[in-house]
Amino acid sequence: MDFHVSLTGAGDLTAQIYAQLREAVLDGRLAGGDRVPATRELAASLRVSRGTVTSAYDRLLAEELLESRRGAGTFVAAGCVPPAGSSGGSGRRRTRPGAVTPTVLWRSPSVPSLVPGEATHDFSVGVPDGTLFPLATWRRIVSGTLRRGRLAPDTYDERGASRLEAEIARYAGVSRSVAASADDVVATAGAQQALDLVARVLLEPGDVVAVEDPGYTAAARLFATHRATVRGVSVDGEGIVVDALPTAARLVYVTPSHQHPTGVAMSRARRIALLEWAVRRDAVVVEDDYDSEFRFADRPLEPLQSLDRDGRVVYVGSFSKSLLPGLRVGYAVAPASLTAALREAKRVTMWDGDAVTQRALADFLAEGHHAAHVKRATKVYRARREELLHGLAGLDDWLEVVPSAAGLHVCTFLRDGRLDDVAIADEALAAGVFVEPLSPRHLEQPPRHGLAFGVGGIREEQVAPALALLGDVLRVSRPRPRAGG
Amino acid sequence: MDFHVSLTGAGDLTAQIYAQLREAVLDGRLAGGDRVPATRELAASLRVSRGTVTSAYDRLLAEELLESRRGAGTFVAAGCVPPAGSSGGSGRRRTRPGAVTPTVLWRSPSVPSLVPGEATHDFSVGVPDGTLFPLATWRRIVSGTLRRGRLAPDTYDERGASRLEAEIARYAGVSRSVAASADDVVATAGAQQALDLVARVLLEPGDVVAVEDPGYTAAARLFATHRATVRGVSVDGEGIVVDALPTAARLVYVTPSHQHPTGVAMSRARRIALLEWAVRRDAVVVEDDYDSEFRFADRPLEPLQSLDRDGRVVYVGSFSKSLLPGLRVGYAVAPASLTAALREAKRVTMWDGDAVTQRALADFLAEGHHAAHVKRATKVYRARREELLHGLAGLDDWLEVVPSAAGLHVCTFLRDGRLDDVAIADEALAAGVFVEPLSPRHLEQPPRHGLAFGVGGIREEQVAPALALLGDVLRVSRPRPRAGG
Repeated sequence: MDFHVSLTGAGDLTAQIYAQLREAVLDGRLAGGDRVPATRELAASLRVSRGTVTSAYDRLLAEELLESRRGAGTFVAAGCVPPAGSSGGSGRRRTRPGAVTPTVLWRSPSVPSLVPGEATHDFSVGVPDGTLFPLATWRRIVSGTLRRGRLAPDTYDERGASRLEAEIARYAGVSRSVAASADDVVATAGAQQALDLVARVLLEPGDVVAVEDPGYTAAARLFATHRATVRGVSVDGEGIVVDALPTAARLVYVTPSHQHPTGVAMSRARRIALLEWAVRRDAVVVEDDYDSEFRFADRPLEPLQSLDRDGRVVYVGSFSKSLLPGLRVGYAVAPASLTAALREAKRVTMWDGDAVTQRALADFLAEGHHAAHVKRATKVYRARREELLHGLAGLDDWLEVVPSAAGLHVCTFLRDGRLDDVAIADEALAAGVFVEPLSPRHLEQPPRHGLAFGVGGIREEQVAPALALLGDVLRVSRPRPRAGG
Repeated sequence: MDFHVSLTGAGDLTAQIYAQLREAVLDGRLAGGDRVPATRELAASLRVSRGTVTSAYDRLLAEELLESRRGAGTFVAAGCVPPAGSSGGSGRRRTRPGAVTPTVLWRSPSVPSLVPGEATHDFSVGVPDGTLFPLATWRRIVSGTLRRGRLAPDTYDERGASRLEAEIARYAGVSRSVAASADDVVATAGAQQALDLVARVLLEPGDVVAVEDPGYTAAARLFATHRATVRGVSVDGEGIVVDALPTAARLVYVTPSHQHPTGVAMSRARRIALLEWAVRRDAVVVEDDYDSEFRFADRPLEPLQSLDRDGRVVYVGSFSKSLLPGLRVGYAVAPASLTAALREAKRVTMWDGDAVTQRALADFLAEGHHAAHVKRATKVYRARREELLHGLAGLDDWLEVVPSAAGLHVCTFLRDGRLDDVAIADEALAAGVFVEPLSPRHLEQPPRHGLAFGVGGIREEQVAPALALLGDVLRVSRPRPRAGG
């Protein structure tokens, strides 16, 4: 690697080169066995005589920090092991602590996500099973993309992005009846970025944003960082309570297919009421079609986007659950009055997404692999889900299952209002079972306590033993009846 | 593909299924040869009798919109070609025009980028030569990453991101003497996203941001979309004029290695003056180390980041020029007081980057392929650059070359202040030569006219013929001397 030396003034140049190389070896930036530049090269790049560099190297060789290998060059001595903790990075060098602080919005530490940690039974929510993904097919497609002539010769792959957007329009049109042409689709780095772009182009500071409560807290946090006033609106068995929407809301964020986290599907009547409300209030509805791709029961309901006759729904979708974990691709389908601004916001923020992933996903969709994968994965998830519902029936004294038709998790309410879901989740984790408590997903409504069970991280045969362990926890946690019983 | 049918009420269900499939065929969502769901499957997913679906299919078969293939299933008839213009997407279905408009910030159309179009000689600025990239090596590393057990089993690949951040710390430490451990590095989707995160966590609406003028207009635009008051500060032969900085500036954005677009390197004295100014004014300096990886002359100067003793420099780097075009990876190295907020802003915006690219790049850096590629590419670019400087010497009557030591383009000023660089660039393009005019890169300073020549998109042997064509344009464009000559 080219090694940076800063020479200042006309002082002892050899000493400067010596000191900077020595420091890099001692602080671990250069590790034992690393090749250092040839004296001729370094002298040329520093515009000094070769003798100046050679003298510095000689001192380092004498100190046995460098070693010379005949015919191969000069290397950091093999014995030079960087101090513990610094491997792979310059562990002892740090930036200065910092004289500058973030704005107030960013000063509060984020709420740490719950992590399954060492749990042997993992009911994590929002996580697909990566092992179901057709990795060999994807690898073949990616390798095919990484060929000369397949990728655009310039930095930004606009043709690749628009091909992906055309495939997404077709996919959302066929599988979800979303009304969209390629021009209406903006491909993004995950649904979260789609929400960020929407917030950016639609919100002025202080605008009121209504979100479901309990709801997807990451979305609420995102809107808040755009300086919106975020208001939590209660959710009943038909979805968000339209009558409870704040009249000033500029934007309403909903997850109608599988409300996050309760799993409720928004009823058709409620969908129509929400759209009518939005027309009356001149508001925008952001429809996050979260968890719609895995469907297990009931007829699918028409998305708000295709019921919308007025052009005030932005539909947001994601491939995060149906692709390989960690491939971040999502999209927004927006009314024509917004797409130019969304594209511009994407360009200003990050130019474009990963060209290779974009092209590979377009092929993956066009060749039918995505549809086939979703079909296969739905079978696996269905079996886990049925096993889960069967097991939860046995815990019916404690847990009331919230009916749902789609998605990778099932939500339950604790029947006994005196129980604390966070405490139960903690105890379950101690027993090796990771479940997600419901109450932390509330924003301002009085929290309902419950437990959510994801089926992405757990195998079918683990479900029953996991629920048995949870049952033991629930039996102990149950408050004693007040009298006589 | 699963086909979405919305059934409403208890009306004629067959008619609803028939109408929705027919529409999808006619609007191009379903194309000739596409398989439609088996009647049994569709009936099950819609919770209707199989006969209901079969009747609908029978009508479509009779109309020859569908065809049945024995043993294979039912397909859209091969003769059904979607109307022109709709291939690859549902061309005739569109979102509604839209009842909602973006905020004022996003209403003005963006300035379209200049594109080389059909130019046979392409001096595009900011574009590397993708053909120099070791594609086979990258493909091998990516394929290796796409193996079971290599990728994190869950959605977000935090371990992959931190391994990349450790490799970046080492790379920036060795090649640029940036003082950083892995904890100080935040990997991003390109330098642009790094700037976006920095703006997000540091700026309040109305804060003053100082940028170089002429400068990198995409950065200025980004800061403006964060509701900052952006002020352009003039640039001389030593970089940004520190004495001209607005006293209220909260953030100063600079490109010290190779000022964008003039190519000037910020002098050491100016660097120190800028840091002292920032301490005095309690401002943050964002150092975009744009174009530092390809170095052709002079000793490298120490980055502001490693001169900073106070912790008020955020260093931003990019792999956009040294990797495959379209792989969007950049990074910020920030004082410890900012890294938590930057990570949180990244999480809130898009969770994480592409896990495969992140892991592959960590390996690519660790195995030394990046350093070897930069070394090889520098040789190629050096030859093109020397050819360019040689050719520009022949145009010395018109063009004054701005001295620069690094980077993929050379900037020139038009000696005759009466000439218009945009007009000349237009004429050059008509002659087949794409060059970038300097004046549109100005924000508020009186524009200087000039032409910038990138060496990423042009082969060495094309340089002389291109400059010959440009010379013809310059000779014609030159205003006549006022008198006697």
